Amino acid sequence: MSGNAKPNTNLVETVVNLCKRRGLVYPSGEIYGGTRSAWDYGPLGTELKENIKKQWWRTFVQSRADVVGLDSSIILPRQVWHASGHVATFTDPLVESLHTHKRYRADHLIEAYEAKHGHKPENGLADIPDPETGQPGNWTEPQMFSGLMKTYLGPVDNEQGLHYLRPETAQGIFVNFKNVMTTARMKPPFGIAQVGKSFRNEITPGNFIFRTREFEQMEIEYFVAPEDAKQKFDEWVDACWEWFIDLGINPDNMRKFDVPEDERAHYSDGTIDMEYRFGFQGSEWGELMGVANRTDYDLGCHIKESGEDLSYFDQSSGERYVPWVIEPSFGLTRALMAFLVDAYHEDEAPNSKGGVDKRVVLKLDPRLSPVKVAVLPLSKKDTLTPTAEAVADKLRKHWNIDYDTSGAIGRRYRRQDEIGTPYCVTVDFDTLEDQAVTVRDRDTMEQTRVKIDELEGYFAQRLIGC
Amino acid sequence: MSGNAKPNTNLVETVVNLCKRRGLVYPSGEIYGGTRSAWDYGPLGTELKENIKKQWWRTFVQSRADVVGLDSSIILPRQVWHASGHVATFTDPLVESLHTHKRYRADHLIEAYEAKHGHKPENGLADIPDPETGQPGNWTEPQMFSGLMKTYLGPVDNEQGLHYLRPETAQGIFVNFKNVMTTARMKPPFGIAQVGKSFRNEITPGNFIFRTREFEQMEIEYFVAPEDAKQKFDEWVDACWEWFIDLGINPDNMRKFDVPEDERAHYSDGTIDMEYRFGFQGSEWGELMGVANRTDYDLGCHIKESGEDLSYFDQSSGERYVPWVIEPSFGLTRALMAFLVDAYHEDEAPNSKGGVDKRVVLKLDPRLSPVKVAVLPLSKKDTLTPTAEAVADKLRKHWNIDYDTSGAIGRRYRRQDEIGTPYCVTVDFDTLEDQAVTVRDRDTMEQTRVKIDELEGYFAQRLIGC
Repeated sequence: MSGNAKPNTNLVETVVNLCKRRGLVYPSGEIYGGTRSAWDYGPLGTELKENIKKQWWRTFVQSRADVVGLDSSIILPRQVWHASGHVATFTDPLVESLHTHKRYRADHLIEAYEAKHGHKPENGLADIPDPETGQPGNWTEPQMFSGLMKTYLGPVDNEQGLHYLRPETAQGIFVNFKNVMTTARMKPPFGIAQVGKSFRNEITPGNFIFRTREFEQMEIEYFVAPEDAKQKFDEWVDACWEWFIDLGINPDNMRKFDVPEDERAHYSDGTIDMEYRFGFQGSEWGELMGVANRTDYDLGCHIKESGEDLSYFDQSSGERYVPWVIEPSFGLTRALMAFLVDAYHEDEAPNSKGGVDKRVVLKLDPRLSPVKVAVLPLSKKDTLTPTAEAVADKLRKHWNIDYDTSGAIGRRYRRQDEIGTPYCVTVDFDTLEDQAVTVRDRDTMEQTRVKIDELEGYFAQRLIGC
Repeated sequence: MSGNAKPNTNLVETVVNLCKRRGLVYPSGEIYGGTRSAWDYGPLGTELKENIKKQWWRTFVQSRADVVGLDSSIILPRQVWHASGHVATFTDPLVESLHTHKRYRADHLIEAYEAKHGHKPENGLADIPDPETGQPGNWTEPQMFSGLMKTYLGPVDNEQGLHYLRPETAQGIFVNFKNVMTTARMKPPFGIAQVGKSFRNEITPGNFIFRTREFEQMEIEYFVAPEDAKQKFDEWVDACWEWFIDLGINPDNMRKFDVPEDERAHYSDGTIDMEYRFGFQGSEWGELMGVANRTDYDLGCHIKESGEDLSYFDQSSGERYVPWVIEPSFGLTRALMAFLVDAYHEDEAPNSKGGVDKRVVLKLDPRLSPVKVAVLPLSKKDTLTPTAEAVADKLRKHWNIDYDTSGAIGRRYRRQDEIGTPYCVTVDFDTLEDQAVTVRDRDTMEQTRVKIDELEGYFAQRLIGC
């Protein structure tokens, strides 16, 4: 967004197109007409997504003595979802337009109305026109519809085989709480972190990778003594905010939203959402992550349902308690979308005719950039190829490298700029003489001559933490 | 296995117990009695699994100019599974014992008979006794049973909403073949790699994490000109074998198995499996991965079903062809189990009384070890704590670190040995004087005094590629 903090509604569209064109994200199963439910991540998108996970894990797990990792199953025993309340309460109000017979979520219709008009519809749904035809609203009564996705294990599709795909990774953490605490020898305050896929049977997937039926989460359940819950909640809100800013998000494009009681999830005693200014049509801001105070709700539910003792005995105070839980829950794919939208810039670069060309540049933090260095031999002539390939192979041991021989050098720079590659290395005819290459910086476009022997060290200093 | 190449059937049991005790792997949902379908990975298991993925990605994607990554959805459009033949042919023969009314896979019963007796049962199932009661076999006729797991998208569980969870990651690659080739500007021979979960409705999950309904795969589909298929197949067989050996698997515990035509998957024109000597009861060897020649079967199916042109035009030869596919397909969780079983050793370590104690040590390659360095202050006294914590914090920036203050130093070494931590750092009272610590090597048990200032460099040299 050209360095300012006001994205326009076309920006999302522009980024979606860039994603398709450059192989970051494709519509899932496009040769069959695609599906709104999910998106597939191409070579660059896969690297970007992995880099976000890696930075998240490094910040919140590896660098902290008080958080350990977990990787639990997508299909957990059925009792888990009965205990957690998801079977009973993880439902959405579904309405059908009598004009088009299409189905919508009533709460989404009302939210969109509110975002547009600044107030709730006075007469409820009756005030809301059909989103497709614009005709005056004519809706069925809301019916509650489960967001859980079912599957059947075993040979027969019956009640006994009925299982659910997890709608959040969190429950896998709660049911393993005691195993982890014991085997990892932790005690509150401590956290368990998990990254993985979750599934929700959304009625209206949409806004690119923002709302999909299959998505990835990065969650921490942080277990604390009840009296420490407030303080730890505040600390996690700060730490999560800081994570986005440290990785380059413009703070003017982020805001905190204190979720009112009637909009919170059934388990939450307080939630702060962090929202990013995506600039969607209808609602400018979209939720990136939330920090929730889940109290002892979940452990309490599992104690009741399983009969296991999930309390903790604090030897120093002599007290036994069921820990409260502070939950920072990130949408990985939403974070990816925010990093892309925030990094998108258009500026100008000098061309070979002494003028300037428009350039698109993703100003991604190098830790997130899918490609760290592109190696570009100035000519395809055989004299340069062995040296250029040797340089690429050398760097490939450490980082994800692109090697591009095709087209004018300016055009190749543009290709790297628009995928956010922080450095380009040009191998030219002087290289054969001086055993040096030209390193070009993505943001400043400055060029520096560096000896091939010193290249690994040069980048090691500049790509710290990559 | 004490350094030799003959695991016994108790070894798997021993490793399973170590996994539960130390938090590598737990039965999924254990507080609800667990499930045979899946296992959850604890803090150490999650790190180990991530390290295997990382090494795989580094070897087969990052270090190679001819392979790029992909991350496609678990739930693909339905047509994908019709086109691929999975809806029609991904079935197993299911029989029921008339003694116990329990269900079994007929092919598994026959395989187990063959492994025990050295020949197939002459009279088919009639020769096979009930596995539970030992009574003479009395079986129903085999019924074909789909291995696909279903789910429903959208508000109603009807034919329109019916979708499948992927039984292999491969199809996500085939349907994205053209998008990837175009946007990543690749041409055959080139490969697309993917790591992710797959789901199969196994009748008889079992042997710990070896056969589960939810599992993780690491797959490459390598697209070649038809005439190059044979050569590339052989190259991939060698590269895959080498990957396991390079990461420490004893080659005496691995073998190749040329899968006969009648046992191959429906898409394969030739398959070499790599098997590891797990030492299961009934069958000693278990499949780790397979390299299959899928010919143009899959792309051909998708061309037919979707109507898209998925052929490649080779400008240098002027020929157009549908690429053949060589597929190296690894079971991630099976690889994890093999690395654990292979690394398990029992030997002796000196104790504080001048004698020796038995020790269990996982001789994992340091690149795979869940914890790279453990920091162990010799005493809990406040005089050592700040220095020990500062050392741990410093190392934690680069690697996964354990910090353990509890129990005698010998016991703490034992704890690290049995999870395969390559180095322990002891902070003692001399440290306050000489600003140095003792580094102990897991395998040689040799101790070296290293200055705190030089510690990061010391480990950076020894933990290359970690």
